[in-house]
Amino acid sequence: MEKSKKLLSELKGLDFKNMYNDDFLLTWEKTDDEISAVHKVADILRDLRENNVSTKLFDSGLAISLFRDQSTRTRFSFASACNLLGLEVQDLDEGKSQIAHGETVRETANMISFMADVIGIRDDMYIGKGNTYMKEVSKSVVEGHKDGVLEQRPTLVNLQCDIDHPTQSMSDMLHIINEFGGVENLKGKKIAMTWAYSPSYGKPLSVPQGIVGLMTRFGMDVVLAHPEGYEIMSDVEDVAEKNAASTGGSFVKTNSMAEAFKDADIVYPKSWAPFKAMEERTELYGNGDFDGIKALEQELLAQNANHKDWECTEELMASTKDGKALYMHCLPADITGVSCEEGEVEASVFDRYRVPLYKEASYKPYIIAAMMFLSKTKDPVAMIEKLMAKGTERFQG
Amino acid sequence: MEKSKKLLSELKGLDFKNMYNDDFLLTWEKTDDEISAVHKVADILRDLRENNVSTKLFDSGLAISLFRDQSTRTRFSFASACNLLGLEVQDLDEGKSQIAHGETVRETANMISFMADVIGIRDDMYIGKGNTYMKEVSKSVVEGHKDGVLEQRPTLVNLQCDIDHPTQSMSDMLHIINEFGGVENLKGKKIAMTWAYSPSYGKPLSVPQGIVGLMTRFGMDVVLAHPEGYEIMSDVEDVAEKNAASTGGSFVKTNSMAEAFKDADIVYPKSWAPFKAMEERTELYGNGDFDGIKALEQELLAQNANHKDWECTEELMASTKDGKALYMHCLPADITGVSCEEGEVEASVFDRYRVPLYKEASYKPYIIAAMMFLSKTKDPVAMIEKLMAKGTERFQG
Amino acid sequence: MEKSKKLLSELKGLDFKNMYNDDFLLTWEKTDDEISAVHKVADILRDLRENNVSTKLFDSGLAISLFRDQSTRTRFSFASACNLLGLEVQDLDEGKSQIAHGETVRETANMISFMADVIGIRDDMYIGKGNTYMKEVSKSVVEGHKDGVLEQRPTLVNLQCDIDHPTQSMSDMLHIINEFGGVENLKGKKIAMTWAYSPSYGKPLSVPQGIVGLMTRFGMDVVLAHPEGYEIMSDVEDVAEKNAASTGGSFVKTNSMAEAFKDADIVYPKSWAPFKAMEERTELYGNGDFDGIKALEQELLAQNANHKDWECTEELMASTKDGKALYMHCLPADITGVSCEEGEVEASVFDRYRVPLYKEASYKPYIIAAMMFLSKTKDPVAMIEKLMAKGTERFQG
Repeated sequence: MEKSKKLLSELKGLDFKNMYNDDFLLTWEKTDDEISAVHKVADILRDLRENNVSTKLFDSGLAISLFRDQSTRTRFSFASACNLLGLEVQDLDEGKSQIAHGETVRETANMISFMADVIGIRDDMYIGKGNTYMKEVSKSVVEGHKDGVLEQRPTLVNLQCDIDHPTQSMSDMLHIINEFGGVENLKGKKIAMTWAYSPSYGKPLSVPQGIVGLMTRFGMDVVLAHPEGYEIMSDVEDVAEKNAASTGGSFVKTNSMAEAFKDADIVYPKSWAPFKAMEERTELYGNGDFDGIKALEQELLAQNANHKDWECTEELMASTKDGKALYMHCLPADITGVSCEEGEVEASVFDRYRVPLYKEASYKPYIIAAMMFLSKTKDPVAMIEKLMAKGTERFQG
Repeated sequence: MEKSKKLLSELKGLDFKNMYNDDFLLTWEKTDDEISAVHKVADILRDLRENNVSTKLFDSGLAISLFRDQSTRTRFSFASACNLLGLEVQDLDEGKSQIAHGETVRETANMISFMADVIGIRDDMYIGKGNTYMKEVSKSVVEGHKDGVLEQRPTLVNLQCDIDHPTQSMSDMLHIINEFGGVENLKGKKIAMTWAYSPSYGKPLSVPQGIVGLMTRFGMDVVLAHPEGYEIMSDVEDVAEKNAASTGGSFVKTNSMAEAFKDADIVYPKSWAPFKAMEERTELYGNGDFDGIKALEQELLAQNANHKDWECTEELMASTKDGKALYMHCLPADITGVSCEEGEVEASVFDRYRVPLYKEASYKPYIIAAMMFLSKTKDPVAMIEKLMAKGTERFQG
Repeated sequence: MEKSKKLLSELKGLDFKNMYNDDFLLTWEKTDDEISAVHKVADILRDLRENNVSTKLFDSGLAISLFRDQSTRTRFSFASACNLLGLEVQDLDEGKSQIAHGETVRETANMISFMADVIGIRDDMYIGKGNTYMKEVSKSVVEGHKDGVLEQRPTLVNLQCDIDHPTQSMSDMLHIINEFGGVENLKGKKIAMTWAYSPSYGKPLSVPQGIVGLMTRFGMDVVLAHPEGYEIMSDVEDVAEKNAASTGGSFVKTNSMAEAFKDADIVYPKSWAPFKAMEERTELYGNGDFDGIKALEQELLAQNANHKDWECTEELMASTKDGKALYMHCLPADITGVSCEEGEVEASVFDRYRVPLYKEASYKPYIIAAMMFLSKTKDPVAMIEKLMAKGTERFQG
């Protein structure tokens, strides 16, 4: 556990006391020290588990999961994280109408939280809704705790909203940190977050937004590339610009995939839906205009089809730094000739990067666990020391 | 934990030995001491949790939940209670037909219970069915245990049946006890269990039945109010009358909401379906007469609409004892202008009582846990003393 | 715990070291010592639980269940086994299309396994698919572990495939061993695995195949009886023949139920679908020919109806050894006049054997737990000794 000891000494130098009893909703609401603390604690939790040391903080307690969208990977990551800390997941599976607004949100949030230490929410379908909903739930349980209804204040983890996907971007970041041998080595590195063609429609914006909102904080040269008309939320572009300005990095937009890939150290080619279209879709949904939604869908699929040349090919990969940029994806990818006829990435590129891609994904349970650890534990450093000293075996055999 | 010590010394004076290895199906099948023991253990479990003392009795073991009706609140309360004691919930989610009758009930009950310590059942949809089904499951697992099929005898908790809703009424009762500073202060207090208008149809009778069946035991003046035609099960009225007679309280029926509210210390305005109509519905269901069910539904909605004046208004609240009766509801309530156009309660009344209402609900997990605790533990007093002496932390952080 | 001590000393004489870190897919891939080790560990785990000794090996960790077919009994058995060892079950509930082939299997298998110690799969619907899929998942996670993606190598338990149903046949076997007072008493005993009429269609072949593939290993005289046209997979018949030849038992096929029952010590009358028809069905399914599937279904139901005389009657039971053969079934059975008009077994026969049938089923959680125990634990004997010495109570009360 030398690794953990080193990380722990680094953790001691960081200021993350405001994370205690707080939610994790958007990465740009957190300080650099707090971001760094999550990464260090995630790596420590992983190292402890690899050394068969139990990190079960809770003897009993629930973690509520609320997925308003089908999910396998995030669900399993959340379940793994909760289990690692000793919380049992209880899924809330109400119809959308039941947990809609105001009174209902407040009441349901309290009714499910009597023994809840954590609430994980995924709500990324409608622009302007997901993050708003999370804040409403948070406000409700804070009040419930203050009023003596809830014995503990459940803290929230954003498992993907309309604005950000912090557990994804933080896992991606940790992958990059570990691939490049430390966050200090990222200064001046070029990362291309680029749109790519997919035969499916309406992929969430939270991944590209999360990436440009986070990666611009470490002095990297971040390029956001997409065809005209595939703009992301402008608020997040503003965040990215401010980040870049204050860390000596840069944030550049382009409509050329080739330009983005040129000499890039890292590439992240992935499909998403245009922000404007998603706004329109949300309005149609609000009006119950399902014919309108279908028409919009056809329009978007046709629009996508104009950009089939936005594919991560071997040729493009060859144009990156030494032809060896780190290829990233949140998975599952649309692989040309494998999962679809024409997609985001050539099969040979995907194949070559399969192991790093899987590793990238493997950080997510630890990122989620770290967010919960820092939010629930009053003195995380002392707690880690205690867990290491105790050395309870995760598996006796 | 002074509170727990006081409660424990009170618990020592009660006789509840027959609860060991027994089910909890109807409150009127339990003695006053047994009812009181549940309340005291519930308060102790809550106090221990608030003091971060683990009450995990089970190192491993399953609790089976069987909901024949959609449920969020009761499901979460049951899950919380099981988690608090160390049991893992496993949901049985068979189609209704599959667990219908006789042989099938006996077999399924045994097949799911090899490692089950507790079975929680909610089955409130059809008159004459829910409680009967619970008794059949209980008989099956008792036999299975006797025959050496099951290593332990799983005990049942009624999470709502056609007759009673004991985990609700017991939570309501504990709320009242704590609001009025002790069960000894309830003598002579007036509680109004009254029907109220709801735009929805077929709400279960188990809540009003559970309330009059339980609250009449403590010397209170219990008034049951509803429009003509909204009678509850007459068997339960008999129980209420007998209770009242033997405790020096009273049980009065009226068709006037105003009369019920007048000088009441506690009001519980809530919609329910007429018992006769529910019997008819059960028969239609049994005959597979779905057109008949639809027709009955329309009829009942029309009948409800004749009684929109049965609403808990500020005016009515002003007529209660000092204008300050404790307003109660099992939630969710139909709030006029909030969750529906016209409903059970005016928004301003509901708003004023939100915190007590949420607290009322917060007792349910502890009531369920107390029922299980008293049914599984041979010597509950000794066990509580052991847990307090050990003082294992629920949360290390 | 004298029983456990005796079993433990027997376990010490067996060679099962190759089970460590390996899957359990088909019984005939395991040596006699390995089969025996599973039975002994299952009996030990049961004895320890009966003596309130915790066998929780895992402080945290997940077990993934993947059921491609509705299941109650196996699901509860798996959940019980996992809970007994300290693993939390997480269900993977993807649509069939999503976990179809190649890349997707590899990726999903890894994505859900970051903290998975065990994966249980039931996939018995299509000939040539289930077992193949399990091997693909296994290969994927072995690679994932080798590549450093997964910290542990999740081991697989076959909860029923198209070829074998090892957790069923091993439970059946343990039931027989315990009923006959030891595996050494089975030599020369006659067991009749026979087809029986059912009004339903397409029951899986894995039960009869599992039975003849396993029971032929212990010197028993195994008779497989079915009407013409109800042949099982010929590969499994080959296994049964080879087994019989090497253990001094026999494997005989017949088209007469009476011949099979004559002087039998054990009878296992149960419906199944013809292997050829199931192959055809799989092809129709692969071609998306749903009309063809419906036509085949009608054909098979008509074919079944020609063999209503294949019923386990009192008369047939009277022809068995002393009229007292052990009647077995994997449950649920089609009981004439109870669960259907005409079925696999007369009600009075079933009634008489209800308790042994339930006991037969009660072994399954322990068999599954034993398979996991032997696959996860480096030194199972030492681990059992450790658990016995520690004597942690499963239930404190």
